[in-house]
Amino acid sequence: MQDIATRVWNHKWKIDPIVRSLIDTDFYKLLMCQSVFRNRPRTQVRFSLINRSTHIPLADLVDEGELREQLDHVRTLSLSRGESTWLRGNTFYGKRQMFRPDFMEWFEKLRLPPYHLERHGDQYELTFEGTWPEVMLWEIPALAILMELRSRAVLKDMGRFETQVLYARAMTRVWEKVERLRDLDGLRLADFGTRRRHSFLWQDWCVQALGEGLGANFAGTSNCLIAKNNDVEAIGTNAHELPMVYAALADSDAELAQAPYDVLADWQEEHDGNLRIILPDTYGTPGFLANAPDWLAGWTGIRVDSGDPATGAETAIRWWQERGEDPRDKLVIFSDGLDVAKIEELHAQFQGRVRVSFGWGTLLTNDFRGLVDGDALAPFSLVCKAVSADGRPTVKLSDNPKKAMGPEDEVARYKRVFGVGEQVGVEVVV
Amino acid sequence: MQDIATRVWNHKWKIDPIVRSLIDTDFYKLLMCQSVFRNRPRTQVRFSLINRSTHIPLADLVDEGELREQLDHVRTLSLSRGESTWLRGNTFYGKRQMFRPDFMEWFEKLRLPPYHLERHGDQYELTFEGTWPEVMLWEIPALAILMELRSRAVLKDMGRFETQVLYARAMTRVWEKVERLRDLDGLRLADFGTRRRHSFLWQDWCVQALGEGLGANFAGTSNCLIAKNNDVEAIGTNAHELPMVYAALADSDAELAQAPYDVLADWQEEHDGNLRIILPDTYGTPGFLANAPDWLAGWTGIRVDSGDPATGAETAIRWWQERGEDPRDKLVIFSDGLDVAKIEELHAQFQGRVRVSFGWGTLLTNDFRGLVDGDALAPFSLVCKAVSADGRPTVKLSDNPKKAMGPEDEVARYKRVFGVGEQVGVEVVV
Repeated sequence: MQDIATRVWNHKWKIDPIVRSLIDTDFYKLLMCQSVFRNRPRTQVRFSLINRSTHIPLADLVDEGELREQLDHVRTLSLSRGESTWLRGNTFYGKRQMFRPDFMEWFEKLRLPPYHLERHGDQYELTFEGTWPEVMLWEIPALAILMELRSRAVLKDMGRFETQVLYARAMTRVWEKVERLRDLDGLRLADFGTRRRHSFLWQDWCVQALGEGLGANFAGTSNCLIAKNNDVEAIGTNAHELPMVYAALADSDAELAQAPYDVLADWQEEHDGNLRIILPDTYGTPGFLANAPDWLAGWTGIRVDSGDPATGAETAIRWWQERGEDPRDKLVIFSDGLDVAKIEELHAQFQGRVRVSFGWGTLLTNDFRGLVDGDALAPFSLVCKAVSADGRPTVKLSDNPKKAMGPEDEVARYKRVFGVGEQVGVEVVV
Repeated sequence: MQDIATRVWNHKWKIDPIVRSLIDTDFYKLLMCQSVFRNRPRTQVRFSLINRSTHIPLADLVDEGELREQLDHVRTLSLSRGESTWLRGNTFYGKRQMFRPDFMEWFEKLRLPPYHLERHGDQYELTFEGTWPEVMLWEIPALAILMELRSRAVLKDMGRFETQVLYARAMTRVWEKVERLRDLDGLRLADFGTRRRHSFLWQDWCVQALGEGLGANFAGTSNCLIAKNNDVEAIGTNAHELPMVYAALADSDAELAQAPYDVLADWQEEHDGNLRIILPDTYGTPGFLANAPDWLAGWTGIRVDSGDPATGAETAIRWWQERGEDPRDKLVIFSDGLDVAKIEELHAQFQGRVRVSFGWGTLLTNDFRGLVDGDALAPFSLVCKAVSADGRPTVKLSDNPKKAMGPEDEVARYKRVFGVGEQVGVEVVV
């Protein structure tokens, strides 16, 4: 029997909203937002969507009107009472009241600021400009909306059973990965796949499937809404946007060289334990670690997010040893371009030498490779980055020159200031 | 939003009934029932369930209490008004009022007769005794219930996502078959998988998936309820039980030799066109055709249901040619142990030489081979046959000695009467 009211209600929606909650975002965004709200609340930042997979003609695939409707819908959202209660009342990383009352009061009143959308050829230019704590919250919904609109565009003309079988195949694929991961003793793995997910419902399915399949080895999800709905851990710490904006605001080369450490000094004031995770690759991991102050060696772990991951982890282990720390007490979080084979390999190489954790992203929540004609559902490399701060361009180098971004002269200056030499290029899959 | 009434209603069911309708049965059962109701209404027949796969310990797998509940539930069923309307008003094989008013009046009042269930070691003895038109309708529900209870027993301890992935894998497998069958020009294929289906819902899914995937090449289903619900053709003609019972009732060897033709003489009085399908293998195809009266050569087609199917079809083609018929006007229906590779092979060999049609059974609606540990969901060979008529044992030889059944001395007598010599054994898969 149909619930008639539900059916009528559902048909009153003008659109099927992709993002239905302000906490349908990564946990680290909220942590960083609170940090920015406290330390740099008035910095003017510009975020910009960048499709690194230029062979995907996003503007041909995704209707501009539909895109605007979805973005407009996000601007109508505000924190619900239950969401606020969850953020205020929950224990994150073993700590209560992770979010301070002044931040929560601000967040409860927040509506996302306007966006700017223009079509350029077969791509969209989508930018967000405003105070940093506000505009930074656009990143994840903007990416999730574009990814899911692209999925919907591809699925539009499929038959009902064809569609069900497509998801059957994708489910089977995820489950085969789960079955392999089950064999890894002491695995610790979390979902980091919000931003480039196939769709919200699909990410939700993947998280629940991992929960059942991996049991205690499943650490949680970066997605706050999915964590809340399924009562699992919300996972995440910090990201490149903090050092990128701090660096852009530096008034001299000396200040620039110091900027990444300033970020972590601010972070240390707010957080301890498992939240003290270093993301060292923004301007090259080797230089960052070589010049790091000693107090950073006392932090809990390092996240390896670009370059060859095994190399990154070995660098981290050597650094801890040089600073008199026992790597077996330290945590290495791998989070770049992971899939099962890579997870197995890294697990075999590092389990027992350090504590290892995996943040599994796009190839968890969007592995539809080869499932439709022309591979039209294969994930692609879409990012949304802080491109300027108070009018100054930002720069990211990372440990992979193919992920570098920023104006050419500034990239050259940063390389000089941070002593980045020759880097090995690694193909960016997703 | 849940429909509260639906939820409460569903929880009031004491069991989850497997067979919920008297027309959740094969169409040919109803056609034959009408024929029996007219020609042999008072014959006392005994049907018996036979598990040819003795390595499957049905009585260990399936709880006797649950089995009784399901069988008891079937005895509460009667034809609904809508089902009666569908049978009375529908066009079957282009003909209206296929079912006569006197038969429909009887059927509308019918409740299935009692069953007899006993456990013997790790198997059940399940028998049905009574007048032929009544007991014959137990065959399909009895088989479907045992098959589905076995499925449920295997699925009982699986996790939620594990279960969903199991079905995802099974769906993918069906769809891969559909994708291969799509390539066969002029294919004509129907579902014959009711009796040994994994479950009712699964058969229903398979039929709908075939409908979408094969389009006009999908001919329909043998299952009346699924045909009615999905508005597709109900397919089927007649089966071995008619010659088996007619033969058992014969008073002399001469009458016995004539019995299979008597069946078809009765059938011819009632049916024309595509319903005039010969099932020649009950006591050996070669002898049946050699001794057949000329009027049988005028029938529409032959169903090949045992032995090597290509040999059976070649035999049929030669016979038509000998009798001055053009095989290109004739229909060969393959219905024994089919799967995609065999369908492809037979299609390639016979398309253009005769009209070809496929009745696809167990490996359509129950191909869960290899999908769970110990292959515990693999289909197996369960049948429910008329074993005696008015106290005399029935015999079936077929074109495969491994499918022969009946008392040894009677089998020998039938072989002599029907002139069956050496036969080639073919492994019975399902």
